[in-house]
Amino acid sequence: MAWLRSLSRLSRFTSSFSSGIPPDRSPSSFSATTRFSGFCSGASTSNGYAGLGPTRPGLDKPRLVVLGTGWAGCRLMKGVDARLYDIVCVSPRNHMVFTPLLASTCVGTLEFRSVAEPIGRIQPAISTAPGSYFFLARCTAVDPHAHTVHCEVVMDQEGLENAKEPWKFKLSYDKLIIAAGAEASTFGIHGVKEHAIFLREVHHAQEIRRRLLLNLMLSDVPGISEDEKKRLLHCVVIGGGPTGVEFSGELSDFIIKDVHERYSHVKDYIHVTLIEANEILSSFDVRLRQYATKQLTKSGVRLMRGIVKDVRPEKVILNDGTEVPYGLLVWSTGVGPSSFIQSLELPKSPGGRIGVDDWLRVPSVQDVFAIGDCSGFLENTGKPTLPALAQVAERQGKYLASLLNQIAKAGGGYANAAANIQLGDPFVYRHLGSMATVGRYKALVDLRQSKEAKGLSLTGFISWFIWRSAYLTRVISWRNRFYVAINWLTTFVFGRDISRI
Amino acid sequence: MAWLRSLSRLSRFTSSFSSGIPPDRSPSSFSATTRFSGFCSGASTSNGYAGLGPTRPGLDKPRLVVLGTGWAGCRLMKGVDARLYDIVCVSPRNHMVFTPLLASTCVGTLEFRSVAEPIGRIQPAISTAPGSYFFLARCTAVDPHAHTVHCEVVMDQEGLENAKEPWKFKLSYDKLIIAAGAEASTFGIHGVKEHAIFLREVHHAQEIRRRLLLNLMLSDVPGISEDEKKRLLHCVVIGGGPTGVEFSGELSDFIIKDVHERYSHVKDYIHVTLIEANEILSSFDVRLRQYATKQLTKSGVRLMRGIVKDVRPEKVILNDGTEVPYGLLVWSTGVGPSSFIQSLELPKSPGGRIGVDDWLRVPSVQDVFAIGDCSGFLENTGKPTLPALAQVAERQGKYLASLLNQIAKAGGGYANAAANIQLGDPFVYRHLGSMATVGRYKALVDLRQSKEAKGLSLTGFISWFIWRSAYLTRVISWRNRFYVAINWLTTFVFGRDISRI
Repeated sequence: MAWLRSLSRLSRFTSSFSSGIPPDRSPSSFSATTRFSGFCSGASTSNGYAGLGPTRPGLDKPRLVVLGTGWAGCRLMKGVDARLYDIVCVSPRNHMVFTPLLASTCVGTLEFRSVAEPIGRIQPAISTAPGSYFFLARCTAVDPHAHTVHCEVVMDQEGLENAKEPWKFKLSYDKLIIAAGAEASTFGIHGVKEHAIFLREVHHAQEIRRRLLLNLMLSDVPGISEDEKKRLLHCVVIGGGPTGVEFSGELSDFIIKDVHERYSHVKDYIHVTLIEANEILSSFDVRLRQYATKQLTKSGVRLMRGIVKDVRPEKVILNDGTEVPYGLLVWSTGVGPSSFIQSLELPKSPGGRIGVDDWLRVPSVQDVFAIGDCSGFLENTGKPTLPALAQVAERQGKYLASLLNQIAKAGGGYANAAANIQLGDPFVYRHLGSMATVGRYKALVDLRQSKEAKGLSLTGFISWFIWRSAYLTRVISWRNRFYVAINWLTTFVFGRDISRI
Repeated sequence: MAWLRSLSRLSRFTSSFSSGIPPDRSPSSFSATTRFSGFCSGASTSNGYAGLGPTRPGLDKPRLVVLGTGWAGCRLMKGVDARLYDIVCVSPRNHMVFTPLLASTCVGTLEFRSVAEPIGRIQPAISTAPGSYFFLARCTAVDPHAHTVHCEVVMDQEGLENAKEPWKFKLSYDKLIIAAGAEASTFGIHGVKEHAIFLREVHHAQEIRRRLLLNLMLSDVPGISEDEKKRLLHCVVIGGGPTGVEFSGELSDFIIKDVHERYSHVKDYIHVTLIEANEILSSFDVRLRQYATKQLTKSGVRLMRGIVKDVRPEKVILNDGTEVPYGLLVWSTGVGPSSFIQSLELPKSPGGRIGVDDWLRVPSVQDVFAIGDCSGFLENTGKPTLPALAQVAERQGKYLASLLNQIAKAGGGYANAAANIQLGDPFVYRHLGSMATVGRYKALVDLRQSKEAKGLSLTGFISWFIWRSAYLTRVISWRNRFYVAINWLTTFVFGRDISRI
């Protein structure tokens, strides 16, 4: 009677949605049919598939569907009152990444795990409350009129080789928060995706680390030519924003301290080149920029002005024809709207992000909000598009969590029920300042509101100390705060870890 | 004049070996020719390739070539006096793995990095002394008469997609130590290599962890059938030796403590089954075995007697026809000689390992030694083959290091120079006892010399404490001792880490 138990258990999930998603094409083969009761229980047509149906006011809590586990989505879920909402999160990763510390993990200053916080720790309800879930999946479409999102389990992983097509499901929402982030910009340059490594996820940092250690070992193989040795140990960073600068700084720290001590055979061959089309750290003031330039140069980072035209397997070609051979290529030239965001039929802000009003709502539809790098103020708000920064996303998540709590308390938690609710103060962004480390216990801190404003700016060791402390208090769990402190301590005492695992 | 500098720099490396290795087949393409100066400088025939030529007594130190970075090889390198020898290590990984603690990393009790020790920390000379090297490569052939080994850079990694054939090189040795370890036994059973995961390297533990966390998340996808959910969350362990038992124990700890708290939706679906053809922990005495059986059963591990006949993508088929569906399959049925060891034309011990005499020398050839899981006493020594244990390998490495130091001090360090050196006491193995943890702060400690001997055996919390302390003092560097202690502490305080990175 397993099927009967299964049926009753799933009856809440299944519904008779008729969607535009094609039916299972091979029901007789080893496919979704055998895996999903949803296909055969309660669905009135073969087009119906499993999911979470609409909530029933009075019986269920209103359901908040959150797309994404970045700074915006995670800060939002942390702040949402789980007694008021069931929280359902859809994301291709089950953890948040502390992006500002990611560069440090590439060279072993920090461990990968110290910069990743599982969503279940950020919002425990998601793994314990009966109606709250985390789904390792991508959202593929939003139907704001039916209040549903379509999702697909992330299939590009081991263990699913036998699944013939992606497992799909549909979720009804009362409130939808799109916090799906942005994509690294490649400006359509050929070869970037194939040969360069971005620095946005933990697996990127892992790949950079493995490649770097591999190249250090390969360059010691007997008989390798001088040119090949130089190429293998040439680390090229494209983009002189904070990420590119911080990564270059960490890398030169690693070279000065660890490579000189532990790879002394090849220490004279390793070099870092930072290529930028304009100024490095263009959002910082000129004094800080000059300081950063001086510090990086002193650490041995070569700064190069240039525009990349083409990326080949072992060399970068610039607009002026210069060829730059590389062994490791890291690409960090900012972000732009992802193809998922582009595909949504929602109002857009200048620059192609999802357009929001002063309360971060997406106008023209009900109950949809957008925060973080995927959202921008609509032109009619008169506000500028905010920069794609962790602090913007984090502030928006915090604001929206309290707005949503307030809406639910006022009885507007369910779908189409918030029309007459007083929303209170709109979201206002106040820039707290920018920070970037340049290696060797040095950093820049710019506490001005904007590039033009007056205010405090600092450089040097004190800045570095502020920078580290500030990030340490932002790392959400005590566990990770503790690990980051321990990692910094052991790196200081024992040096960086160089095992290639 | 780069080629000239290159030439002079490499003149020590290159030689005019004429080998059986086929020449570069495509010199015009982007191949070894452009990468290796060795092909064009100093080599008298096109068959010659790069490497380290014979040492020159009086000018160079004698060269010790060590194959492998396991317990045996690493303990040996740690003990060898770098003032007496140049140490050259060839291994596909640049770190040692603390195998007894590997099972703990699969479920996040310990971090991966805490159980890996880079070889440069074990023997610093390897990355700093001018004539000492670590090569990330595999040995493919040994020519004991020419005193050379043939090696191939490990090619199955990112960054080398463009290399058309493996980079090869040759090393001359004065002393060769074969410590290349053994291979997991599959007994020729179909599907094991494709579908099961071994538990011998850090990447195996990483794969197990990723698969386990993936299955936990997939099983929560809406609409998944009850049977599929049970399959995904069924962890099957084949082999009831210490590794299989310890992994089952760790897994049930993880389920009881962390899954019940953090994956409460699916907690009733996850199960562990341990399949063993005979008795679990057959090397331990009957009282300890009964205790282990009781503890495992109490933790929810199902013990099953059976012989595996076939491994399919999602189920195991036993000899009696029983089908066991699984979501995660871990294979730990012991080890046997690797194909590399089988291919060597050296005397063999019973069981196919490299045969050694009382001083761990390979007879019939000069200056070749074998230690660890790849070696065994020759029949004529009258000694039994020692078990494939970390403590055997470690003791052999320690013994041989001091023997080699003694040989070099007596003037026998160079090739063919040790014939008349007094070797002193032969290697004698004294078993110190066996330990295995069974989860929930419980372990077995068996301090008898052999299965038949009388002696102390312990179970319970005290054993668990001894077990942990004993391993903690064996973790070679202070850095990793510190990290293991910190990991245990944070797991105790905050629970295990569940981010899937």
